[in-house]
Amino acid sequence: VRSGAGAIIVGNEVLSAKVTEENGAHLIKRLRQRGIRLRMVTIVPDEIDAIVDAVERARRVAQWIVTSGGVGPTHDDVTVRAVALALGRPVVRLPRLVEEVTRHFGERTTPEALRLADAPEGAELLEPRGTWYPILACDDVFMLPGVPSLFRTMLETVLERLPSTPLHTRSVYLKLGESELAHGLDAVALAMPDVAIGSYPQFDRSIDYRVKVTIEATRLPRVEEAARRLAAHWPPDAVVRTEQDTLGEEGPGEA
Amino acid sequence: VRSGAGAIIVGNEVLSAKVTEENGAHLIKRLRQRGIRLRMVTIVPDEIDAIVDAVERARRVAQWIVTSGGVGPTHDDVTVRAVALALGRPVVRLPRLVEEVTRHFGERTTPEALRLADAPEGAELLEPRGTWYPILACDDVFMLPGVPSLFRTMLETVLERLPSTPLHTRSVYLKLGESELAHGLDAVALAMPDVAIGSYPQFDRSIDYRVKVTIEATRLPRVEEAARRLAAHWPPDAVVRTEQDTLGEEGPGEA
Repeated sequence: VRSGAGAIIVGNEVLSAKVTEENGAHLIKRLRQRGIRLRMVTIVPDEIDAIVDAVERARRVAQWIVTSGGVGPTHDDVTVRAVALALGRPVVRLPRLVEEVTRHFGERTTPEALRLADAPEGAELLEPRGTWYPILACDDVFMLPGVPSLFRTMLETVLERLPSTPLHTRSVYLKLGESELAHGLDAVALAMPDVAIGSYPQFDRSIDYRVKVTIEATRLPRVEEAARRLAAHWPPDAVVRTEQDTLGEEGPGEA
Repeated sequence: VRSGAGAIIVGNEVLSAKVTEENGAHLIKRLRQRGIRLRMVTIVPDEIDAIVDAVERARRVAQWIVTSGGVGPTHDDVTVRAVALALGRPVVRLPRLVEEVTRHFGERTTPEALRLADAPEGAELLEPRGTWYPILACDDVFMLPGVPSLFRTMLETVLERLPSTPLHTRSVYLKLGESELAHGLDAVALAMPDVAIGSYPQFDRSIDYRVKVTIEATRLPRVEEAARRLAAHWPPDAVVRTEQDTLGEEGPGEA
């Protein structure tokens, strides 16, 4: 079943370390804050085949796909063509985009600039705040530019359209090691598949815990039940501290 | 043709922003310094199917695969099983690893701790510096733990085994916009497929250039030839400055 979001970061400059990847990290943080589950992130080069494959793979698991990069007038800007191919749609030049490109570039409207007016047939144009170029959206694939300032602005417009689900989380910091906790974690994770249980060891002896266990679910009573069951597996003095939080309650959105 | 490296970051904690992803960024930087081309990075949850799919996909394009995370004794540590499945190999318990795990954990050697002794059949064990647990390597897939300090240490052991190719790069900073440069970039990129040409616009008016063009190749004369051909497409006073560098010459390695 497709659910949540997937992200595709397009760019040789990221894979070759010419720029530090920022957009994936920002997207991960913002989706978390909105309570939208992220199913996968993939970074691929500016190559049609690689992007097509990534889009097809993302669409097998995720409902909404955000792409970053490869939107522009040069030879290495192939995201729109690749997304169209993956969706089985032709690329068409949209009259409304031709108008906007021509208005923006004026006398500098080269044939290459007009590539910015191409979109998969049937694409919807979303109006972002603070920039003239619309967001191309087609079959729940949102094609954003890779320039970080533009990506961030446009992402907010996309997020407003996605339903937000509150997520309840609890973190328990423990003095025990993972191999001692594993049996209890396994048992509870198996018995409560609707609760996401994670365990994260750290090996710095100057820090006051050895493993952080995280418990997450969309229903708070399930988080509490899982916490109770887990606690039965370890001595009370093994717990250094507990934290809790609820995510995804900002803004409007469906449950 | 498979070439270069691929990276698979396994971890719900990364996708859910519980921890900031560090290992992918570190790997990208170190591969660049070694002159090893990175073909793709993908971040997937702690789920067997997702990891199997990512490994299979990575192996279609990359020669060497590095995985981060999902190596450990708990229920969410499924990387070894998933890699074995993707490689078509059974998972076996290695006597040498049983010995090392037992020596390390002593009286705390639980049945769960012994999961650390499992590996795809035929796996090779590499000895990293500074940690007791060996690196599992099988069919050019290197399975590293996700804890950043361990990942970094173990990655160096892996990198020593990969051939390094020098890469010559030149960056040209220009006062022109991408739509004006696109025609020349297209022509040279098409005529010189062995040279990687990238163009990266920036929109901050306080910075002294509008587009950075990058030219990269394994042979320096090809970089120089591409730079000459590109320069013929723009007025000389459009160039703000030029930088050059050679990567991948540290340490031993094949050409």
